[in-house]
Amino acid sequence: MKPLSSIRLFLTDVDGCLTDGGMYYTASGDEFKRFSVYDGMGMTLLRKAGIRCGILTSENTGIVLHRARKLCLDYLYMGVGRVVDKAQVKVFAPALSEPVLLPAMSKLEACQLICSEMGITMDQVCFVGDDVNDLSLLREVGFPVCPANAIEAVKQLSGIMQLPCQGGNGAIRYLADRILDARMEKNETNEI
Amino acid sequence: MKPLSSIRLFLTDVDGCLTDGGMYYTASGDEFKRFSVYDGMGMTLLRKAGIRCGILTSENTGIVLHRARKLCLDYLYMGVGRVVDKAQVKVFAPALSEPVLLPAMSKLEACQLICSEMGITMDQVCFVGDDVNDLSLLREVGFPVCPANAIEAVKQLSGIMQLPCQGGNGAIRYLADRILDARMEKNETNEI
Amino acid sequence: MKPLSSIRLFLTDVDGCLTDGGMYYTASGDEFKRFSVYDGMGMTLLRKAGIRCGILTSENTGIVLHRARKLCLDYLYMGVGRVVDKAQVKVFAPALSEPVLLPAMSKLEACQLICSEMGITMDQVCFVGDDVNDLSLLREVGFPVCPANAIEAVKQLSGIMQLPCQGGNGAIRYLADRILDARMEKNETNEI
Amino acid sequence: MKPLSSIRLFLTDVDGCLTDGGMYYTASGDEFKRFSVYDGMGMTLLRKAGIRCGILTSENTGIVLHRARKLCLDYLYMGVGRVVDKAQVKVFAPALSEPVLLPAMSKLEACQLICSEMGITMDQVCFVGDDVNDLSLLREVGFPVCPANAIEAVKQLSGIMQLPCQGGNGAIRYLADRILDARMEKNETNEI
Repeated sequence: MKPLSSIRLFLTDVDGCLTDGGMYYTASGDEFKRFSVYDGMGMTLLRKAGIRCGILTSENTGIVLHRARKLCLDYLYMGVGRVVDKAQVKVFAPALSEPVLLPAMSKLEACQLICSEMGITMDQVCFVGDDVNDLSLLREVGFPVCPANAIEAVKQLSGIMQLPCQGGNGAIRYLADRILDARMEKNETNEI
Repeated sequence: MKPLSSIRLFLTDVDGCLTDGGMYYTASGDEFKRFSVYDGMGMTLLRKAGIRCGILTSENTGIVLHRARKLCLDYLYMGVGRVVDKAQVKVFAPALSEPVLLPAMSKLEACQLICSEMGITMDQVCFVGDDVNDLSLLREVGFPVCPANAIEAVKQLSGIMQLPCQGGNGAIRYLADRILDARMEKNETNEI
Repeated sequence: MKPLSSIRLFLTDVDGCLTDGGMYYTASGDEFKRFSVYDGMGMTLLRKAGIRCGILTSENTGIVLHRARKLCLDYLYMGVGRVVDKAQVKVFAPALSEPVLLPAMSKLEACQLICSEMGITMDQVCFVGDDVNDLSLLREVGFPVCPANAIEAVKQLSGIMQLPCQGGNGAIRYLADRILDARMEKNETNEI
Repeated sequence: MKPLSSIRLFLTDVDGCLTDGGMYYTASGDEFKRFSVYDGMGMTLLRKAGIRCGILTSENTGIVLHRARKLCLDYLYMGVGRVVDKAQVKVFAPALSEPVLLPAMSKLEACQLICSEMGITMDQVCFVGDDVNDLSLLREVGFPVCPANAIEAVKQLSGIMQLPCQGGNGAIRYLADRILDARMEKNETNEI
């Protein structure tokens, strides 16, 4: 595996990765999700270290938008990689005050779009996914990762890094700390 | 046991099967429930494979209606199999834009109604239940299943398939994947 | 220990007994709690068997009122046994359409009030409690019980029955099933 | 380690200490957190024993304010020790009916402010923290403590007391009971 210190872009799915897969419904149709303070701090520390962070989700809900804004994430693609129907994709990025609507696309296509904008290759991308609609992107990125609760087909993907933590309970933070450790070691080696 | 590939209709209870049995109450009287993204994907994949999916619940709440709509389920029977009082049953089905009100009925009677509409037998039905008011239907279907957290009387039912997962935490997805695997094996055998 | 079949009144605390002790707060000051469908069915089955059921809680919140109404409980005392301040107690009972306000009282005094109304003795009462403000009542009832998550001082009470389940996750249902089993055995013995 | 009976001020972080780190988001942007009834009782008992209790959090949300008011805490500092941006700190204290706004400060500076007001030293302070932004204060107080779910860098701090319980599930209560036990033993020794 390439060194974790070469990661330039950090992307993650939401349900099952930033959450434990729980989807709460009220009688009035509202929904909510449970995130983790540790994962939030992890992405905050990654951004401080100069790594861009973003979310790719097939859902299209204000829940994720509010969480992404709280963490000042660089990219948010909503409605990508839908299994049954195809829908427009809503993109939020720092340079855009208003969201941009794009034609239906897969998570792989969304990632390629961001890479071309950043001028980086898929080799420099870390993506965390947990279910069948994450497989096509997980196969193409340099650093494919899944939480402990991922679906069997994801865990068995060749070259995938399986985290010891559950989604929504520190999986993203665990990974972020490993990436930051790798950066620090590399910097220390360079200084010698 | 008959092969899982012969299942034509997939029905499940809600509390304890699609959830972990938790019922959240607010001071204003609102309620909510926690579902799992994995179970949702499981029923989505079953429907893509041509298996009709539905929910039978003794509750009568917008929570379940919203979840059923999100997953585009084929059948939703609310208010069936109540233990104490008897109430009208509210039925949602794809051909009905508005719900239909039917006289009080048990879960067994609700299932028989769907079977006769679909022109199938109880042998081709898989039902997931976890408590005493699910027993009468579990005894009659071809594929009776319960989550790991089911009540003892359900677990001890003759011929029941007990899942290794908890309700609300992937039990339905685990079962859906087994059914889809069985279908795929059967198709591969047919092709030889 | 006396036979469980002699229980005439079943009382329980809320937080930590009917819930896992979790108290959810929103920014607007709303609160909610997580109950269990299994516990609800347990109290429903107890009431069907002729055992009166009630709740004694130091809290004074609509959350508990809504849950008690959903389960058609016989008694609800809110604001009893407060540790710091003393406050009026709000009592809901089946014969009262509106709540009655009574002077501050302990959980022990509340239970004595119900016993005198029902014409039974403390020996015929089962009470489930988990914390220091439940101790005085637990010491006096015929059947003192605590969930697995009770505070150490409660678990060490002489003669207490410690359940193998957690509050909010089936502890009350487990106990209800034991009480109903004992009743059935007694009835079967009587019939011989 | 100094005797726990010498603690005069008890301070704790919120996310991961008074909660399990879960942050719930709704689509409308509301947030909520899950606290524990046992932790609440723990701080109530500490205050009854004459130990002042307070919360230091980098968040600035009504959620914590409502919880602090419910428990009648002595101090609440919101917006302290922020990792990325610096913001004004909002201080609630018993003598203040309205919150006071102070310039941005670290958790260490907030604690020093309270100590000087109370006329005590950092040696008499117990602080519970779980993440990197708690480290500077944990290093300076007489009684640094962390829950079982703390980040590795916190657990490895020299002299830290690591609790056997998780944040949001009784960690604070466990600690409060140890402090109260130590007080009781000291009083008994004095009486001999």
